[in-house]
Amino acid sequence: MRVTVLGAGYMGSAMACVARRRGHDVRLWGTWLDDAMLEPCERGEPHPRLGLTLEGIALLRSPRLAEALDGAELIVHAVNSEGAVPVMTKATAHLPDVPVLSVTKGLLESPRTGKMDRIDVVVPQHVGRAVRFVHAAGPAKAMEVARGVLTWMQYAGAVRDAETCARALEGGGLVVTTSDDIAGAELCSALKNAYATGLGLWDGHVGPAAHDARAACFTQAILEMRALVEAGGGRAETVHGPAGVGDLHVTAAAGRNRAFGERVGKGKPAKQVAAEMLAAGELTEGYPAIASAWRYAGERGVTKLPLLAALHAVVWENAPVGEALAGLTLG
Amino acid sequence: MRVTVLGAGYMGSAMACVARRRGHDVRLWGTWLDDAMLEPCERGEPHPRLGLTLEGIALLRSPRLAEALDGAELIVHAVNSEGAVPVMTKATAHLPDVPVLSVTKGLLESPRTGKMDRIDVVVPQHVGRAVRFVHAAGPAKAMEVARGVLTWMQYAGAVRDAETCARALEGGGLVVTTSDDIAGAELCSALKNAYATGLGLWDGHVGPAAHDARAACFTQAILEMRALVEAGGGRAETVHGPAGVGDLHVTAAAGRNRAFGERVGKGKPAKQVAAEMLAAGELTEGYPAIASAWRYAGERGVTKLPLLAALHAVVWENAPVGEALAGLTLG
Repeated sequence: MRVTVLGAGYMGSAMACVARRRGHDVRLWGTWLDDAMLEPCERGEPHPRLGLTLEGIALLRSPRLAEALDGAELIVHAVNSEGAVPVMTKATAHLPDVPVLSVTKGLLESPRTGKMDRIDVVVPQHVGRAVRFVHAAGPAKAMEVARGVLTWMQYAGAVRDAETCARALEGGGLVVTTSDDIAGAELCSALKNAYATGLGLWDGHVGPAAHDARAACFTQAILEMRALVEAGGGRAETVHGPAGVGDLHVTAAAGRNRAFGERVGKGKPAKQVAAEMLAAGELTEGYPAIASAWRYAGERGVTKLPLLAALHAVVWENAPVGEALAGLTLG
Repeated sequence: MRVTVLGAGYMGSAMACVARRRGHDVRLWGTWLDDAMLEPCERGEPHPRLGLTLEGIALLRSPRLAEALDGAELIVHAVNSEGAVPVMTKATAHLPDVPVLSVTKGLLESPRTGKMDRIDVVVPQHVGRAVRFVHAAGPAKAMEVARGVLTWMQYAGAVRDAETCARALEGGGLVVTTSDDIAGAELCSALKNAYATGLGLWDGHVGPAAHDARAACFTQAILEMRALVEAGGGRAETVHGPAGVGDLHVTAAAGRNRAFGERVGKGKPAKQVAAEMLAAGELTEGYPAIASAWRYAGERGVTKLPLLAALHAVVWENAPVGEALAGLTLG
């Protein structure tokens, strides 16, 4: 099968490895921001982020987009959420009518309604044609996917397309289940970055002996994600499976969102922490994710979200961490 | 209000602190195994496990059980699961008709059916009278409860009794919600020890870079706990709240169950690890909990439990860790 991966960052290259291991004819296309990723790979050196050599994978730089898409039977969309509209706009003229498995996580503003919405809804509005998006949700760190550590992903979309993606891209440690709840899966993927930051706040504010508080907020996050997902047309069972519980678990257990929360929890202003992490090349997805989730909630009229409200107050309104956390309602 | 706590270990003394902070007249009764806990407290020294001084709390050694229960308006049952029947058998003649808030977690064999069942079901069968059990579930480490770190507990039982317990024992960091699903809450409390061990296996087997695998097993554990809870007459929503998701989170994140799983995951036989931890005074609840949960599942005819089956095979049947984990079905 001919598989084309759009985006040569962490997750794109990891999915290219999965596809190659599965025996497919794989092309990895890098955006105009990915040259630094592809250059060492072209010389046979390991991918700078992934640390693995991409053997047997055709590497294409950004001007070769049409060639990358030509004859593709399955496309993996692994551009970040900011790049989704620009890349898919350029791709649209060359896009074959095949499933597009998207690992991209986030919410975008709809040009039609002016509200925040899912990527699979907003991108087709921008490019003016239907795209057969299947969303890849679940707890999947690129490094572990590439190395074959047991990983559970859920591919959500039109039944036949989700199943095609699952057959094509699983194995070697990657276990895939499918679902038709693309709304629930995409919303979980977008929301978990916001909530993961909240768990990190406790590490900074109280220290390591705040297991109860972190577990309370993990549980509260699942309840609030459920309310937001149901308001967006998704299903509770998706929140309680790999897309919600699983992905929140992996995101909160480690990574940059937690580090961000930890520093803010110690009392440093969120803007300053975000600026410092940006300068150090550590993109903090949780920072804008909180604003997006808050806006999404407001636009959908979901009001009973005490944890998200506290996170937004601390991170975007400079509320004191201690007060915001002490006054938290649970349940 | 006069509150009597039965059991002077970690959790009993923590709940006594909560009751005292709330302004109650508190008696802490120690079982015949708790003398070493009470002796330093009687001299005004800190509780040996909790590390805190139990100020303003009446301390009663095991022979004074009748006195401890006399006039009690609320009882906290904080004996471990092995002690539940012996203690409640001795207590029954003196037990006033008041709510009994139980923090005890585990399953016991019913003398009536010969099957594993909940403590609130089995204890009354043994003592020959009704006991107004309310089960305290949720992510609550004794140390953090005593120190006033934000903790979410769910008290489950008859509506009025659960509410009485909540009004009497909350505050100072402890947030309580109530539920009438005592079946679901007790089963979650008993089952999470078994599953928490499973997450530790990954740390031992793969090392720290197994976030995906741990998150996958966390999610799978929630699905399997749901199946077991529903088979036992409990509700899914209880599993998705503090009793299930929350308590599994705190138990898996730290503690002795995880340490046990980690050592077994490195390839050491479970029996040997259990013996070593027992010798070091580190009770490993997860070890017998896996056997209890497995027996419970068999007796209730719940069969689709791949994670519990793998855990049982590794821990009780000496199956190789690598094979058991590699062959795991998810979903």
